[in-house]
Amino acid sequence: MTTVQRGAADPTRPVTHIIGAGLIGASIGIGLVADGWDVTIDDYDAVAAKLARSIGAGRAPHEGLAPQVVVVAVPPSAAAAVVREALLAWPDAVVTDVASVKAPIALAAHRSGHGERYVGSHPMAGREISGGLAAQGDLFKARPWVICPNGATAEAIALVRCLPEALQCDVVTMEAEAHDAAVARVSHAPQVAASAVAAALGTLSHEDVALAGQGLRDVTRIAASEAGMWADIARLNRHALVATLDHIIGDLDDVKEADDIGEALTDLIERGRVEVARIPGKHGGAKRDITAVTVIVPDEPGQLLRLLGDVADVGVNIEDIAIEHSPRQPVGLTTLYVVTSSATELTTVLSDKNWEIAAS
Amino acid sequence: MTTVQRGAADPTRPVTHIIGAGLIGASIGIGLVADGWDVTIDDYDAVAAKLARSIGAGRAPHEGLAPQVVVVAVPPSAAAAVVREALLAWPDAVVTDVASVKAPIALAAHRSGHGERYVGSHPMAGREISGGLAAQGDLFKARPWVICPNGATAEAIALVRCLPEALQCDVVTMEAEAHDAAVARVSHAPQVAASAVAAALGTLSHEDVALAGQGLRDVTRIAASEAGMWADIARLNRHALVATLDHIIGDLDDVKEADDIGEALTDLIERGRVEVARIPGKHGGAKRDITAVTVIVPDEPGQLLRLLGDVADVGVNIEDIAIEHSPRQPVGLTTLYVVTSSATELTTVLSDKNWEIAAS
Repeated sequence: MTTVQRGAADPTRPVTHIIGAGLIGASIGIGLVADGWDVTIDDYDAVAAKLARSIGAGRAPHEGLAPQVVVVAVPPSAAAAVVREALLAWPDAVVTDVASVKAPIALAAHRSGHGERYVGSHPMAGREISGGLAAQGDLFKARPWVICPNGATAEAIALVRCLPEALQCDVVTMEAEAHDAAVARVSHAPQVAASAVAAALGTLSHEDVALAGQGLRDVTRIAASEAGMWADIARLNRHALVATLDHIIGDLDDVKEADDIGEALTDLIERGRVEVARIPGKHGGAKRDITAVTVIVPDEPGQLLRLLGDVADVGVNIEDIAIEHSPRQPVGLTTLYVVTSSATELTTVLSDKNWEIAAS
Repeated sequence: MTTVQRGAADPTRPVTHIIGAGLIGASIGIGLVADGWDVTIDDYDAVAAKLARSIGAGRAPHEGLAPQVVVVAVPPSAAAAVVREALLAWPDAVVTDVASVKAPIALAAHRSGHGERYVGSHPMAGREISGGLAAQGDLFKARPWVICPNGATAEAIALVRCLPEALQCDVVTMEAEAHDAAVARVSHAPQVAASAVAAALGTLSHEDVALAGQGLRDVTRIAASEAGMWADIARLNRHALVATLDHIIGDLDDVKEADDIGEALTDLIERGRVEVARIPGKHGGAKRDITAVTVIVPDEPGQLLRLLGDVADVGVNIEDIAIEHSPRQPVGLTTLYVVTSSATELTTVLSDKNWEIAAS
């Protein structure tokens, strides 16, 4: 009775049960509880469940639990089975999960005969998600949260949508197959390629590797990720990942085997430039015309602050920033990315304030 | 007479002639002139030569010019021929060039019969080198400048070494073949791979591409480079580039064709992690133990400054910084990379000052 009343009184805060008390599940719990939701959380590991409850991720489930929404936050390889169990255990609940591959889980939900109550979720917390992070309620704030309806009822979709809205996410709706094809290309294959570029350094001496510039650091930054869930993700999204690797390998082969390697590489770079220009900048808009202003900054605490103070005096917003340290030198290069219309003024003012501009 | 006297009076500032008045040649000229060198500069394009002289990159060469050092700063495809011509034209001069591939030019120098007077150079100005940049004397400051002796005399090596020292570069000495093998892996192949990852986005809708996170942005940042000199570079360094692409393609194929794609990817990621750990951090040392502290920052001018002011109050040096804007949200995520021993204190102080920490 209490449960129904709560749900009826405030339909935007459905009674929610979370299965899985790891980083993702506990973070969702903390965020929802902070927003006033009635949340229970459980885990097959009783210690993990107890820990999550102790940090405010929800209460222990009581007998006769009747959630309106069940969030399955278990490892990707277990998600399909647990979603199916949840659909059968709570015939009145809408079930979602947080795995980063969606089609195999949607398929399992449909095969259970209750697909109309399943809505896939993919909260994209970004690279900080791996490693020994503590759960926190705002882990997903301002990040995309993809919802995959795949035949669910409008009511089910609306209920699941309440979660990312409460957590202040950027809600994106797409079908599971389209999601999986997209993340293969924007996330999974880039991880594989970055690792392959890094692995190719294996033939070099330490001195050779020290020639690395910012370009290599950028390309291989995600190659430092722990393998973690990648094995599961690759298995679940094998089809789309292999299709993407085929595309990449094909392009590399074309360069490798071309009669004129220069011409082939120019063609590939030109095609890549067209696609990079489509990666959104801020606020989902097309990339703005950005200019890099590189400043030589002494490598001491407070110098970056002084630089940014001088930038703020100009009233210019910094779109992006990159810091590059040169080996064996006591200075670093800080590149400020600003809208092109501001770049000349910024360069002039910084020069007047005795900053050394390395490239503008 | 004057020339000889000058050289004798100040052997660290050899009389220098630069062939090629583009960005690199003119920037070297400006930097050397600013350091008090006697520099002449020329270009097959008389307008470019005149422009470079007008911005202080050197004087016009006079008849009977007798330089101690000749710097060949022409496009890579022309470097070998111009180096050979310079060796023949000035039998008492030491010749260097600035092409980013070194073995084919060293070979041409040796075949001319004057290889003992040729020392290859590769000033690594980084990605900012492309695009419509104006020449400036400090373009190379604090950047690596590779010197490839390849059989030159000690005197020739010492003379060429004066250039990067005057320009305050980080001088690295290695043989041409080792240089070319290294840059294929740290620079040329990463460019090809980044472009191939970007090109694979071609099958996606704009909405799909909008799922891109910081990982894809990092991997594909250099894919936005203009094709420019890459065709020349690929042709000159074809052997080492193809060997590197073979390595990368082999690893991608292994993942693609594995019976267990998860296991194969885990193996590749683990091998990549070992190599990424070898990419030097600041001052050429091994990477320090760095922790990422991600802060939610309102996307307004001055907010980043306020954040860094609060960081400076703690006395923590920022090793690196990344700004990530989420589509359709008025806040951004700023990740501060600090030494791990400072991370807890930083997180505590920033939280006390009402910053929202997204991940620590």
